Amino acid sequence: MIDFQTDPDRYRHWRLSFDGPVATLTMDVDPAGGLMDGYELKLNSYDLSVDIELADAIQRLRFEHPEIRCVVLRSAKENVFCAGANIRMLAGASHGHKVNFCKFTNETRLAMEDASENSGQIYMAAISGTAAGGGYELAESTEYIMLIDDRRSTVSLPELPLLAVLPGTGGLTRLTDKRKVRRDLADVFCTTEEGVRGRRAVDWRLVDEVVPPSAWEAKVAERASGLADRSARHGETGIVLAPLARAIEPDRIVYPHLRIEIDREGRLANITLSGPDDLPSDVRGIHEAGAGFWPLALARELDDALLHLRLNEPAIGLLVFRTVGDPAQVLAADGLLEQYQSDWLVNEIRLYWKRTLKRVDMMARSMITLIEPGSCFAGTLLELAFAADRAIMFSGDSLGDNRGPATLHLSALNFGVYPMGNGLTRLANRFLGEPTSLDRSAERVGETLLADDAEELGLITFAYDAIDWDDEVRLILEERASFSADALTGLEANLRFAGPETMETRIFGRLTAWQNWIFQRPNAVGEAGSLKRYGSGVRPDYNPERV
Amino acid sequence: MIDFQTDPDRYRHWRLSFDGPVATLTMDVDPAGGLMDGYELKLNSYDLSVDIELADAIQRLRFEHPEIRCVVLRSAKENVFCAGANIRMLAGASHGHKVNFCKFTNETRLAMEDASENSGQIYMAAISGTAAGGGYELAESTEYIMLIDDRRSTVSLPELPLLAVLPGTGGLTRLTDKRKVRRDLADVFCTTEEGVRGRRAVDWRLVDEVVPPSAWEAKVAERASGLADRSARHGETGIVLAPLARAIEPDRIVYPHLRIEIDREGRLANITLSGPDDLPSDVRGIHEAGAGFWPLALARELDDALLHLRLNEPAIGLLVFRTVGDPAQVLAADGLLEQYQSDWLVNEIRLYWKRTLKRVDMMARSMITLIEPGSCFAGTLLELAFAADRAIMFSGDSLGDNRGPATLHLSALNFGVYPMGNGLTRLANRFLGEPTSLDRSAERVGETLLADDAEELGLITFAYDAIDWDDEVRLILEERASFSADALTGLEANLRFAGPETMETRIFGRLTAWQNWIFQRPNAVGEAGSLKRYGSGVRPDYNPERV
Repeated sequence: MIDFQTDPDRYRHWRLSFDGPVATLTMDVDPAGGLMDGYELKLNSYDLSVDIELADAIQRLRFEHPEIRCVVLRSAKENVFCAGANIRMLAGASHGHKVNFCKFTNETRLAMEDASENSGQIYMAAISGTAAGGGYELAESTEYIMLIDDRRSTVSLPELPLLAVLPGTGGLTRLTDKRKVRRDLADVFCTTEEGVRGRRAVDWRLVDEVVPPSAWEAKVAERASGLADRSARHGETGIVLAPLARAIEPDRIVYPHLRIEIDREGRLANITLSGPDDLPSDVRGIHEAGAGFWPLALARELDDALLHLRLNEPAIGLLVFRTVGDPAQVLAADGLLEQYQSDWLVNEIRLYWKRTLKRVDMMARSMITLIEPGSCFAGTLLELAFAADRAIMFSGDSLGDNRGPATLHLSALNFGVYPMGNGLTRLANRFLGEPTSLDRSAERVGETLLADDAEELGLITFAYDAIDWDDEVRLILEERASFSADALTGLEANLRFAGPETMETRIFGRLTAWQNWIFQRPNAVGEAGSLKRYGSGVRPDYNPERV
Repeated sequence: MIDFQTDPDRYRHWRLSFDGPVATLTMDVDPAGGLMDGYELKLNSYDLSVDIELADAIQRLRFEHPEIRCVVLRSAKENVFCAGANIRMLAGASHGHKVNFCKFTNETRLAMEDASENSGQIYMAAISGTAAGGGYELAESTEYIMLIDDRRSTVSLPELPLLAVLPGTGGLTRLTDKRKVRRDLADVFCTTEEGVRGRRAVDWRLVDEVVPPSAWEAKVAERASGLADRSARHGETGIVLAPLARAIEPDRIVYPHLRIEIDREGRLANITLSGPDDLPSDVRGIHEAGAGFWPLALARELDDALLHLRLNEPAIGLLVFRTVGDPAQVLAADGLLEQYQSDWLVNEIRLYWKRTLKRVDMMARSMITLIEPGSCFAGTLLELAFAADRAIMFSGDSLGDNRGPATLHLSALNFGVYPMGNGLTRLANRFLGEPTSLDRSAERVGETLLADDAEELGLITFAYDAIDWDDEVRLILEERASFSADALTGLEANLRFAGPETMETRIFGRLTAWQNWIFQRPNAVGEAGSLKRYGSGVRPDYNPERV
C-alpha cells in the first residue's frame, strides 16, 4: 500500500529550514529511499515517495508556519539541482502508476502555485547545477527562477530526445502559458538534450535571472527577502497537522469523519462523510481546535481517501458519495468559514477544500452522489453532488424511517470559493447554458430544499421515491461497472469541464491526454522503445509512422 | 492512394439539390461505396469516402453557389438519418487511419460551422429517423437541429456503451460548449445506448425543436427559409472549381503552383510553393480568373497536398516548406485580397486560406520553413514560417547566386485575417509573452526585411550564412528524423497552441488526445476489446482497472 501520510521527522528526501520569513526546502534525495525496488534515486531524481514528502512539506508550511512568506527550493547535491523523474522507475511502472504519478506531481506543483498566489507563501527556485526534465518543471512551478552562471549549470527538458516521452509535469504548458516562451524557441529547447544556460536562458525567458557564482548566495538571499516583502501573509502561531487517525482493513478504511467501504464485486467504493458534531463559536475557537476543526479534519481525511483509492485501488471504478449528519451544523461550519475568511487559518482551510474538491474533479473514476434521508448535503459538502457525474436524490419519505425526507442546502460557499480548475464554480460550470438557473439557485441560499425543489432548480440529476429508489440506484451502479474503464475516463475528462480553459485544465486535459497516449505507444514502452532501452547502450528502434 | 478530389458527378453518397436560397444536402450512402474492402456502409454509416464527398460539397456550395444562404442536411434512408462512423471500418483500420479519419471529419464539421458563421451559408439538420453517434455529431455541427416527433426518431451518442470509444467528431465538446447541455444530463445521454427523443431532447438542449410528422415538411421549409433570411450573404454568379491539374509520381507530385518532392531516406517532404506570375487588376478580373486566381489556385493545391501527405505518406514525418517567386507579386495578391474583402468571392478565398493554414497547424508532422534567396515569403505565404515549428533564414549573399539575399515581407493579412484555432493570429500566438514585438512587427508591414531584421524582430528562429547554412540545415533535419514520431506529435500539439482555448482547440487538443489514447487501449482495440468483438454476439472483456 502506498501511504500519502508523512511528516518532517520521517522525510528521507527533503530538509526544511527557516530563517525569519524565508523557508528553504532543500532537495537531497536518498538514492535508496525509493518506493519500489529496482531503481536508485540518483542525482536528485524522484519517484512518488519524493513527491509525497514535497506535498507534505508544502501543506505544512501553509498550516504550521504562518510566519513564512517565501519558500526557496534548493538542492543539497553537488552539480545537480534535480534530474527529474527517475527513468528506471518509469520504465518499470505500470501504465496506471505512471499516469497517477504524473497526476499527483502535477497537483503538487499546482499546490505550490496556489500557495504563491493565494497564501502569500511565494516560491522561488535557486538552481545551481543541472535542472533537467522534471527538475526544471519543478522550477517552472515557482514564481522566480534563478540560475547560477557557472558555465555548467543548465536548465533542460530532454524528455523528447532522451526518452521519447513528454515533460509530464506541466512543463510544456508552463513554457507556453506561464513563461510565454516563443514557440519556436520552445521547440528548440525541448529537442535539445543538453539544455540552455547563461544569458540565453534569460533571453528565452526560461529563467528570470542568471547570477555569477561570486554573487550567488547574496543574490538568492536578496531575492527571497524581496519576495517575502511582496507577500501580504500575516499570522503568528501555526497549528499542528497531527497524524490522521485511520483504521485500515482490507475492504474498509475508517477515519473519524469519513469511511470507505469497498464492494469488490460491484467494483465500487462507498464513501460516507459525517457532518460536524460540535463547532467552535468564533475564530479563537477555530485556532484552538486546529486540525480538529471539522472542516479541516474532514478535508484531510477526504484528501487521503482519494489518493488511497487512486493508487491502491485501481479496479474500483466507481465512487459513491453519501453523507450523514445535521445539515444545520454543516451550514454553521460554512458560516464560520465565511465570517472569518480574513483570518489566515480560515483562508488556508478554504483553499484546502478548493484543492481537495479539484482532486475530486480529477478522479479518473465515475462518481455518483446519493442524497438520502439523514444526509447533510449542505454548502461545502453539497459540492460533492456537483462534482459527481450524477447526483440522485431520494424523494419523499422512506417507509419506517423517522429521519424525514432528504434535503439539500446551498450556502454562500457554493458561489465562488471553490472554483474548478477551469476557474468556474461547479454551479456555474453546471449552468453554463442557463445562467438564470444560477441566479435562481443563489436566491435559495440557506433554504431547506426537498427533492422536488432540487430537481426543479436543476441541482440534481434525478429524484426517485421509495418505490423506485433501490432498483434505479442498483441499475445505475451496475450499468456503470459494465462499461469500459478507459472510455469512461475519457468521457468524464471531457464532460466534467465545460467552457473556459486555464493553464491547469490545459495541463490535465491537453498535455496529460497526449502523455497518456505516448505512454501507450511502442516507441516509448515497447520492447525496443525508449524507456526499455534507456541506458542499455542500444538505441531505441522507432516506428517512424505519424498518425 | 486515397484521393481527396471529387465532384458532384462522381458522388456516390450525397445528393445536392437547390430551391432558391436553400440547398438540400441529402445523405444516401451507397453501402458498396466504401473506401476499403471488408465492410458495407449500411444505414447511412460512413467512412472517409463519404466525408470526402461531404467536404467537397460544402466547399462547392461556398464557391459555386453564392445564391445559397441555407443548407439543410437530410437523409434519403427510411428510419435513419445517419448511423455514424462505420464500426467494421473502425475495427479494421490502423491506428493512424482512425486518427486521421477523425481529424478530417472534425475539420469538415468545423468547415460547416465556418460557412454558417462567416459565409452566410447557414446549416441546419432535419432529423427523421435515428441520428446515432457520428450521425448526431453531424447534426451538432449545424446551427439548428429539428427532430421529427414520431416516437421512433432519436438522437444518441452510443459510442461509450456500444463501442467503448468516445464520440470522435467533436460530439462531447459540442455538447458541453456549443449546446451547453448540463453535464450530468450529458453523462446520462452519452451512456444511454437508445438515445433520447421527443420533448426530453428539447428540454436537455440536444435538439432545438421537435415537430409532429403532420407538420414536418412545412416546418423544415419554414425554418430553412427563416435561416436564409437571417443570412447577409449576397452574390450572383459562382465560379467553377475545375479539377486540379496534378502529376503524381511515386516520389513527387507536381501541381501548377506547388510541388512535393519526397526524400524517403530522410523521411521528409520538400514542399515548394510558387508565387504568382500575373494577377488581375481588379475584382472583376478576380471573378474572371475564378479558380485560376493565384491565391485560390494555390490554396486548393496546398490543401490537397496536406491531405495527401497525411493519409498516403505516414512515414514522412517532416515537412520542409520553401517558396520561389517574386515577393512583390505576393504582396500584390494580398493587396487584392485586402482591397476587395467585401466581395463574396474574395471573402471566400480569405476564409479558405484561413482553413488551409489551420490544416497546416494540425499536421501531425514536424514542419520547418527554409527562407532562402529567391523565395517569396510575403504576407499570406509568410504564415508558413509562423505555422512551422521552426523558420530558418539564409543570411547574406549566397556565393555565385545573383538573386540577392533572402527577404521577408509582412502584409496586413498577417495581422488578423488568418487566426489559428485558438482565435489568435500566428503572430499574436508567437508573441504572447512580448506584445510589443507584435506592435513592432506591425510597423514594418510592406518593408523588405533581411535576415538581421527578421531575427531582431523575432520573426524567425535562426539565421545562418553561406558558410554554415548547409551543415546547420542538414543537422536540424537529420536530428528531427531521429526522434520518436509519437513524442514529436505530442510535443508539437502542445507547443503550437499557446494561451486561449476555443471549442475548436478543445476538440483537437483535449477530446482528440483522449480518443487517441482510447484507440490504443486493449479495452477498445484488443482481441477481446469492443471494436473486435462488436457484432460477434460475444461481449467484450474489459480490464476494469482505472488509470
